[in-house]
Amino acid sequence: MFKEFIARYENALVNDVIPFWEKHCIDHQYGGYFTSLDRDGSVYDSTKYMWMQWRIVYMFGEFYASEYKKDNYLEIARDGFDFLYNKGRASDGSYYFALNRAGEPVISQYNVFSDCFAAMGAAEMFRATREEKYYNAAREAMDSYLKRIASGNPAGVWNKSMPARQSYLALGHYMMIANLALVMKRGLGISDYDRDGAAALDLVLDKFWNEEHQVVFENILLDGTFDLESCQGRMLNPGHVLEAMWFMLDYMQESGNDSRREEVLKIIEATLKFGWDKEYGGIFYFMDVLGKPHLELQHDMKLWWVHNEAIIACLYAYKVSGRKEFLDWFKKLDDWTWSHFPDPEYGEWFAYLNRRGEPTHMLKGGKWKTFFHLPRCLYMSVKLMKEMQQ
Amino acid sequence: MFKEFIARYENALVNDVIPFWEKHCIDHQYGGYFTSLDRDGSVYDSTKYMWMQWRIVYMFGEFYASEYKKDNYLEIARDGFDFLYNKGRASDGSYYFALNRAGEPVISQYNVFSDCFAAMGAAEMFRATREEKYYNAAREAMDSYLKRIASGNPAGVWNKSMPARQSYLALGHYMMIANLALVMKRGLGISDYDRDGAAALDLVLDKFWNEEHQVVFENILLDGTFDLESCQGRMLNPGHVLEAMWFMLDYMQESGNDSRREEVLKIIEATLKFGWDKEYGGIFYFMDVLGKPHLELQHDMKLWWVHNEAIIACLYAYKVSGRKEFLDWFKKLDDWTWSHFPDPEYGEWFAYLNRRGEPTHMLKGGKWKTFFHLPRCLYMSVKLMKEMQQ
Repeated sequence: MFKEFIARYENALVNDVIPFWEKHCIDHQYGGYFTSLDRDGSVYDSTKYMWMQWRIVYMFGEFYASEYKKDNYLEIARDGFDFLYNKGRASDGSYYFALNRAGEPVISQYNVFSDCFAAMGAAEMFRATREEKYYNAAREAMDSYLKRIASGNPAGVWNKSMPARQSYLALGHYMMIANLALVMKRGLGISDYDRDGAAALDLVLDKFWNEEHQVVFENILLDGTFDLESCQGRMLNPGHVLEAMWFMLDYMQESGNDSRREEVLKIIEATLKFGWDKEYGGIFYFMDVLGKPHLELQHDMKLWWVHNEAIIACLYAYKVSGRKEFLDWFKKLDDWTWSHFPDPEYGEWFAYLNRRGEPTHMLKGGKWKTFFHLPRCLYMSVKLMKEMQQ
Repeated sequence: MFKEFIARYENALVNDVIPFWEKHCIDHQYGGYFTSLDRDGSVYDSTKYMWMQWRIVYMFGEFYASEYKKDNYLEIARDGFDFLYNKGRASDGSYYFALNRAGEPVISQYNVFSDCFAAMGAAEMFRATREEKYYNAAREAMDSYLKRIASGNPAGVWNKSMPARQSYLALGHYMMIANLALVMKRGLGISDYDRDGAAALDLVLDKFWNEEHQVVFENILLDGTFDLESCQGRMLNPGHVLEAMWFMLDYMQESGNDSRREEVLKIIEATLKFGWDKEYGGIFYFMDVLGKPHLELQHDMKLWWVHNEAIIACLYAYKVSGRKEFLDWFKKLDDWTWSHFPDPEYGEWFAYLNRRGEPTHMLKGGKWKTFFHLPRCLYMSVKLMKEMQQ
């Protein structure tokens, strides 16, 4: 059933996406990676954004441990790790947001997701090599991430919010805990974070889902209620929700406890329905649950990662449920995504399309796009489809 | 020559834009203003962003001192001033970025432009009333603004940049000094800031203009050179440049020293040419001087304020030069702007259009749009056109 899809996804991964990054992202002079890559792979800015850097370590580590293994994948990941671990870590074990090309920190450690992606990259390196230094680096970064989230103030001294400001719990923080717990389990072979992962899963399903509006909110009040009076409270991020939901299915599969599977399937379907642009196709970036104006100028754009995560969510949902609606959604998404994002001329995919699906930028990588969502989508999709073929 | 234009601009100002804000922006319960106004004027968020708040004080103060004077304009501005001065000022005299509806600070004073717009609002109130408290508030905010810019670190403790980060001078900081110096001169009747204004004007013309590329850069290196290697260094903001240039013409007119007029006229023409979208019309929001990918997702959108400032710049340039090319540019801009931004159904103007000129948001006000650019454009345009008619 998936034969053509598997061939197409695997071909893109092996003959297009991995080679594009292998060829263009390595900074042979200073170490680390270039991620600001123009349409043809040329470098248009050499700032080393830590999220983007660590995600490359993670992905090349993952491919080294996969059926697509090549020896140089480990070298690429190892060299990056050394650069990032040595240059990118602040004295408290947290990670800066950005380094300059030479590796000097240029933007502070205000953003907690630098720690998150460092933990993922290091854990994947341990899985690939079993070398203790990677294990320790992964634990250190993971503990920093969890501690900062638990503090209620992950931005630390760079937090611009004042005491009177309405505080929210953010979906992104908890969805990443569920994913990280699994990465630690698989990468480090430990169960130390199982409770954190299970608690995050329950929190998202118990609190962030709103039955009345049939949506998962991006931000909820600290007491678990919803804030429909402010832009922040009404905000939806369908791509985030779909990513979170396949993390949940993945977590359930690993833990063997799928008691909440039906809730996850319901959320995936509701999010696809709510997020799909009925006029031009594709999934919106940001939405307001009541259709009021969105703060972000780019809210109606179509982003590659949103569609990558949606494809994985559909395939995972179809695999665990066998329900035809998820297969239909997958085909619809596959069709829109593949007819709008790939760049037939220079390879790899465009990142940013306007609402109509026309590219607004020619970049293949930047401050927010790197070797991560797209290769992970292709890889996970091939894996899920092959499992279903058998 | 301008008869139809004057009638249309004046009608929009007096019968549409001022009444829209008069009716919808006042928070009778807590004081201050609502600026997050949906298409029909209804409030969709009650956060009180200080830039937006102080600009309302400024504009109603200005209209009270104008031929459009109505007594309640002074009341609206006075009530807002009291709320903002009493609730919005930190202990060091700088202004927070945002208050909640009740007036408690919710976002810290990291953004120096809160001080800038407080200075403008207070100075305009002094002009309208001659009451000393407004004079003192204007001086205090102006001095805070200048001190923070001169420090090289206006964001203070909230600055996320680290020592190794490339530092730039920002066009916005200096263009506002030129404008502020004039507002202080006219509002407070003092010449204390003339030197600051003149220095800012010279800096922009001497350093930010690049002869080779025929553009004014948004950011230049501290030594006055250009950085073509980074996104930040290559960034252009045509709306900012056109706004800066009519500030310069205004400053020259007031100071009586127009020795650099030709340079300003050349920049206006070059910016219109570079910034105009030859495919869909209108002026781009952000550009990269070399056409490389832009960091901002919304770079190709068409924003109301960019077109408001461009219209003033064209009329001012035509008035001082009499050159037909500026009249042609004015007509071209007028045509595109008026056929895309006004909302015939609910009044006022849309803020955000996609590249094609279709609204992406229905809002009339928000975090970045308030009673400012549009009424100032209509008012200044009528004024300039009437002067030319005579």
